[in-house]
Amino acid sequence: MNIAIPIFDGLTALDAVGPYEVLSRLPGAEVRFIAATAGPIRTETGMLGLIADASFEELVDPEVIVVPGGHATRRLMGDDHILDWLRRAHQTSVWTTSVCTGSLLLASAGILEGLQATCHWRSLHILADYGGHPLSERVVEQGKVITAAGVSAGIDMALTLAARIADEQTAQAIQLSIEYDPQPPFDSGSPAKAPKEVLERVKAAGARREAAADAGSTRVDQASS
Amino acid sequence: MNIAIPIFDGLTALDAVGPYEVLSRLPGAEVRFIAATAGPIRTETGMLGLIADASFEELVDPEVIVVPGGHATRRLMGDDHILDWLRRAHQTSVWTTSVCTGSLLLASAGILEGLQATCHWRSLHILADYGGHPLSERVVEQGKVITAAGVSAGIDMALTLAARIADEQTAQAIQLSIEYDPQPPFDSGSPAKAPKEVLERVKAAGARREAAADAGSTRVDQASS
Repeated sequence: MNIAIPIFDGLTALDAVGPYEVLSRLPGAEVRFIAATAGPIRTETGMLGLIADASFEELVDPEVIVVPGGHATRRLMGDDHILDWLRRAHQTSVWTTSVCTGSLLLASAGILEGLQATCHWRSLHILADYGGHPLSERVVEQGKVITAAGVSAGIDMALTLAARIADEQTAQAIQLSIEYDPQPPFDSGSPAKAPKEVLERVKAAGARREAAADAGSTRVDQASS
Repeated sequence: MNIAIPIFDGLTALDAVGPYEVLSRLPGAEVRFIAATAGPIRTETGMLGLIADASFEELVDPEVIVVPGGHATRRLMGDDHILDWLRRAHQTSVWTTSVCTGSLLLASAGILEGLQATCHWRSLHILADYGGHPLSERVVEQGKVITAAGVSAGIDMALTLAARIADEQTAQAIQLSIEYDPQPPFDSGSPAKAPKEVLERVKAAGARREAAADAGSTRVDQASS
């Protein structure tokens, strides 16, 4: 089972590494991190480098596609290199999936037209601009297309996908292997649950970051965004 | 706030990337991935490369230490290079933390002597061999030493730590930013919750992997372990 995770400068690391950690444990899985050019890729904070082991052209027909998100997706929504790769790979994929704002790239490639889909809560509404039907759920399955909500939702999505690819017991074994028995110390993980002042703070930080990006600044706003 | 994540060939990626994703969002955080030698590091599956941006010697006094685990920890428990670095860094650290079998390295460095600590459930008992008091909990705090259970527990640990370093609202804002509102599709994330056959399967896979490692095989057993 060939699994491709396309990565790019400005990705959110956990979007990619959560599903990697689950799917790489499937019997027979071969996960490959690919990019426009093989080599080092930096995350949106600049603090972590991941290695793309191959270029997009070297893996055009993966059975599973997992598209992560990150600050860079706004820029990449107009990048034909990655969008053309997605369109081609989706034609033959068994599963096409995304985490967080990775669904904005699927949407830009035309893959979500007419489909229900999810995204990071801050960007969910954008899917409608591309013919998608935004759904505020953790994991949304539509045939072979599975989208996940923000960042950490990729772990839930990948366990769901692992059960589809293999079987439920295998997915449960992977869950036990990664001891995924979450016990968040706070209950602030969604806009519906977070205290109002926390929600406003994260919204404001996101708006500041986007304004800075529009002004051409490369500075990353770390203020809890 | 300087945060060091020491990495090594054979680590579990999510052990490191979960805490990175949380802690890098703290205002003023500077996360650095370091290793015995700067350069590419491969995870235990071999399928993902992370980049160590500096050597241990280049960052001897981080304020926060986050030690990930992985199959390699059994070997590294006798590796003076990383253990000496841990002993020295722990002398001046504000927080010394671990995820999964990263606590075996803290234990081997003598840091857990007399302390309660946790670890991946399969290896928890080993802590007692080094004077630690194994505790089957998700996150264990003992003064400045915080240990987390297996793999995904690093996210819960890092949110706990984020509240200590900054404040609760900041940690909640980070939780909302990474949309950490976990909804695992199965309830199989701990030995107490997993179906018996799933538990036996994961135990057997772990035993096979360790036997292969003892026999000098470098083959990674992917069978849901």
